[in-house]
Amino acid sequence: MEGKAKSMADYVEGKRPVIEAMRTDVPIKKILMADNAKREPMIEDILRKARQRSIPVINVPRDELDEKSARGSHQGVMAETKPFPYAGVGDIVDAALKYADEHEGRALVIVCDHITDAGNLGALIRSAESVGASGLIIPNKRSARVEASTYKSSAGAVAHLPIAQASNIASTLDRLKKDGFWACAATEHSKNELWDVNLKGKIALVVGNEHEGVSRLVLEHCDMAGRLPMMGQVSSLNVAQAATACMYEWLRQNW
Amino acid sequence: MEGKAKSMADYVEGKRPVIEAMRTDVPIKKILMADNAKREPMIEDILRKARQRSIPVINVPRDELDEKSARGSHQGVMAETKPFPYAGVGDIVDAALKYADEHEGRALVIVCDHITDAGNLGALIRSAESVGASGLIIPNKRSARVEASTYKSSAGAVAHLPIAQASNIASTLDRLKKDGFWACAATEHSKNELWDVNLKGKIALVVGNEHEGVSRLVLEHCDMAGRLPMMGQVSSLNVAQAATACMYEWLRQNW
Repeated sequence: MEGKAKSMADYVEGKRPVIEAMRTDVPIKKILMADNAKREPMIEDILRKARQRSIPVINVPRDELDEKSARGSHQGVMAETKPFPYAGVGDIVDAALKYADEHEGRALVIVCDHITDAGNLGALIRSAESVGASGLIIPNKRSARVEASTYKSSAGAVAHLPIAQASNIASTLDRLKKDGFWACAATEHSKNELWDVNLKGKIALVVGNEHEGVSRLVLEHCDMAGRLPMMGQVSSLNVAQAATACMYEWLRQNW
Repeated sequence: MEGKAKSMADYVEGKRPVIEAMRTDVPIKKILMADNAKREPMIEDILRKARQRSIPVINVPRDELDEKSARGSHQGVMAETKPFPYAGVGDIVDAALKYADEHEGRALVIVCDHITDAGNLGALIRSAESVGASGLIIPNKRSARVEASTYKSSAGAVAHLPIAQASNIASTLDRLKKDGFWACAATEHSKNELWDVNLKGKIALVVGNEHEGVSRLVLEHCDMAGRLPMMGQVSSLNVAQAATACMYEWLRQNW
């Protein structure tokens, strides 16, 4: 029991990462500091920032940090983060339906098919929040989830956009469709340019992972698909950049 | 003279950054290694990668690295990069006019008004290359320029997109206008949505820096301006994300 509970806590380790986590408002439960940590400038900075934010600092034997550390890079300090308060898929659907009522029928939900990088996830969250999306859904397994680096790359948007974890993306899309959404996949394998796809109204925009894009199974549960033409020699966009262009195409069509 | 030449060389310092630079194909002139560097796995990896790429490795006294190091984080190894082969503004204009001839009159040149982050610059380069832009122009002062991190964040696109440095962005816009381009600023201060702005044909898309956006002076030299509506509570997009959406709006209108 104890072992399981311990493995579920998320830690940020190392002096600079802990400072960065406080700076970017990652919710922190407590800071663990080696009882023999030297009082040098960065440690003083951590103590000052923790005091300003009323985060408890617990002195522990260095061995305890070694044991909790996943990377062995704690440098005598680790921050235990609070679990991210995920929304339910139902909360996001409700918020989207309410948004649609207030915005001439338009609403956007972003569905991520196994994004692997927590930083990319944050960038997606930032764009989704900027365009007025009602929420973002990620799988609860084999997917990046909200962690310290997501706070940073979302530029704070993670605190403003409901994010839900779903056990099955395909059945989540079926549910959204029952609630009146059209599911549209952004995929380079589509024959249609995204701007030729009708994105008017309530849309679940499905974006794929960094390497394989939207999976075949998930694609089968989409109503439609569109691509952003790649005109260069290198021909790849970062998933968050591509998603941003798709989200603004949704907004343009619904403006 | 010697002092000046030395200060103009660009170095990547530290074991992991040097490995990353080779992995992302940053052009490297030579690697300087402390003659007392320990033969541990990362150093062995550097030596192997350098051999594969025919990059000379020079053993030097550690003092010499200390002297050349800008950050004091060399860990016994530094890579001296080759100067980036910037194009001229004229080369980009010529390429764009040729592109327009072959693509029903459309061409895109990206003009960056003092981007400050080399990583953002790389992300912009990646998007510009993906959308089929003919080149990207940056100021030669007070601006991020192409460095090792740009290679990484451009995902290799930096090797395929002509990039020019200009001494004056306002007069560069005047020149582009004389060559038949319309200069359009992407700025949140515009009253027009970008999709209501006519982006057909040869466009110089002006993007501003991370903090102040497009400067007033540069704006005065633009023919038109458009904004991406910000619909969220946090309401900010990363400059590269915003620019990507703008670039695809250009492509959509010209498709």
